[in-house]
Amino acid sequence: MPQHNVPLTVHGMSLSGNCYKVKLLLEQLGSPYRWIEVDSVHGQTRTPEYLALNPNGKVPMVERDDGRVLVESNAILFWLAEGTPYLPADGWQRAQALSWMFFEQYSHEPYVAVARFIRTWTAPDSPRRGQLPELLQRGEAALAVMEQHLAAHAWFTGPHYGIADIALFAYTHCAGDGGFELARWPAIQAWLARVEAMPGFVPMAAAPAPCA
Amino acid sequence: MPQHNVPLTVHGMSLSGNCYKVKLLLEQLGSPYRWIEVDSVHGQTRTPEYLALNPNGKVPMVERDDGRVLVESNAILFWLAEGTPYLPADGWQRAQALSWMFFEQYSHEPYVAVARFIRTWTAPDSPRRGQLPELLQRGEAALAVMEQHLAAHAWFTGPHYGIADIALFAYTHCAGDGGFELARWPAIQAWLARVEAMPGFVPMAAAPAPCA
Repeated sequence: MPQHNVPLTVHGMSLSGNCYKVKLLLEQLGSPYRWIEVDSVHGQTRTPEYLALNPNGKVPMVERDDGRVLVESNAILFWLAEGTPYLPADGWQRAQALSWMFFEQYSHEPYVAVARFIRTWTAPDSPRRGQLPELLQRGEAALAVMEQHLAAHAWFTGPHYGIADIALFAYTHCAGDGGFELARWPAIQAWLARVEAMPGFVPMAAAPAPCA
Repeated sequence: MPQHNVPLTVHGMSLSGNCYKVKLLLEQLGSPYRWIEVDSVHGQTRTPEYLALNPNGKVPMVERDDGRVLVESNAILFWLAEGTPYLPADGWQRAQALSWMFFEQYSHEPYVAVARFIRTWTAPDSPRRGQLPELLQRGEAALAVMEQHLAAHAWFTGPHYGIADIALFAYTHCAGDGGFELARWPAIQAWLARVEAMPGFVPMAAAPAPCA
C-alpha cells in the first residue's frame, strides 16, 4: 500500500491556493482524507496549539494517523505523488518538475498570490495596496516565463500532467483576483483549460469579492 | 554511472549563496564540473544569450554536455544528490528534506539573503535600505524556526547531513553580512560548525565589505 494511503488529515484554508494544491491532488488520487479548516487570515495558524505542530505557522499541513506532520505545499505534493503518474520516475524529469515548483514558490506565488491576498483581504485604504504595482510587474514576469514554456510544452511536470502543473495552476487560475489580465496569455489560458479537463479535477473555493 | 557524473557546467556567481550550494555539493560528491562565472549583480543573467537558456534570468544553472539545462538551486541539489548519502532514500524523509528546502526559498532566503544583498551591493543612500528593518524581523523569524528544530535534531535533511543542510547553510552562515546577530542562536552556531566540519567542505567566497 502506498504510504500516502494511511488516513491523512489536512489542515488547510479552503480559499488558499497553497492548500487547494493538496486537495486537488488528493481528489485526483482518490485518497481518503479529513480536512480541518484553519483560518490563517485571522490568526488560526498562530495559536500555541498550531505552532506546536508547525513552528513556521503556515498552512497547509498534513498530519498522519501517528501524529507526524509535513508542511510546505509543494513538499506535500511530492510526497503524495511519489510512485503515481503525477510525478515522473526519471530523475532528470523529476528535477525539472521540482525546478518549476521552486519557481512557483520563489518567482510566482510571492507576487501573483500576494496581489490576490491584498486585493481580496485588505481594506481599500490599506497601505499594503501601494505594493500592488510592483507585485503586478513581477507577477507578469513570472507569467511570461510560463507562457514561453507553454509555447513548446503541454505541461510543466514533464510529458504528462502532474504536480508541477498543480502547483502552478493553484494561483495562476485565480490571478485575475489579483488584478492580472489572463487574456494576455493565450498559452496559459489553453493550459488552464487542459488542467480543468483532467480526470478528478475539482475547482478551488471561490474567494470573496475583492475589497476594491 | 550516476547521471550526474556526465561532464557538467555550472553557470554561477561565486558570491551568491544559491550558487555556492551547487559548488559545495559537487565538491563533496567529488564530481567533476566546469564553473562559468556569471555576474548577476551587473546584468549578465539578462543578456539574450543567457535568457535563451534560462528565461527566468537567474543563477545558478547547470548545463549538461548535450545542452540540456536545469535551474533553481534546490532542484539542482536534489538531482545531484539522488542515489547518494546526501538525500535520504525513504520517501517521508525525502519529503521532510524538501519541506526544509521550500522553507529556505520562501521563508528564509527572501529575507536573510536579500538583507545581505542590500547591505553589500547597494549604496548607503539606496532607498532599498528602508526595507532592512522588515527583512531583519522576518529573517529572525526564520532563524527562530531553525533554532527550534536544531534544539532536537542534528540536521535538516534527516538523520544525516545532506542537501537540506546545504540549502540552509548557504545564506545562514553569512547572515551577519545582512546585519543578523548569529550569536543569538546557539543551536544554529553549533550546526554551522558541524556543517563546516563535514568531509569535502569548502567555504563560500567572501563577499566584499558591506557598503555600510
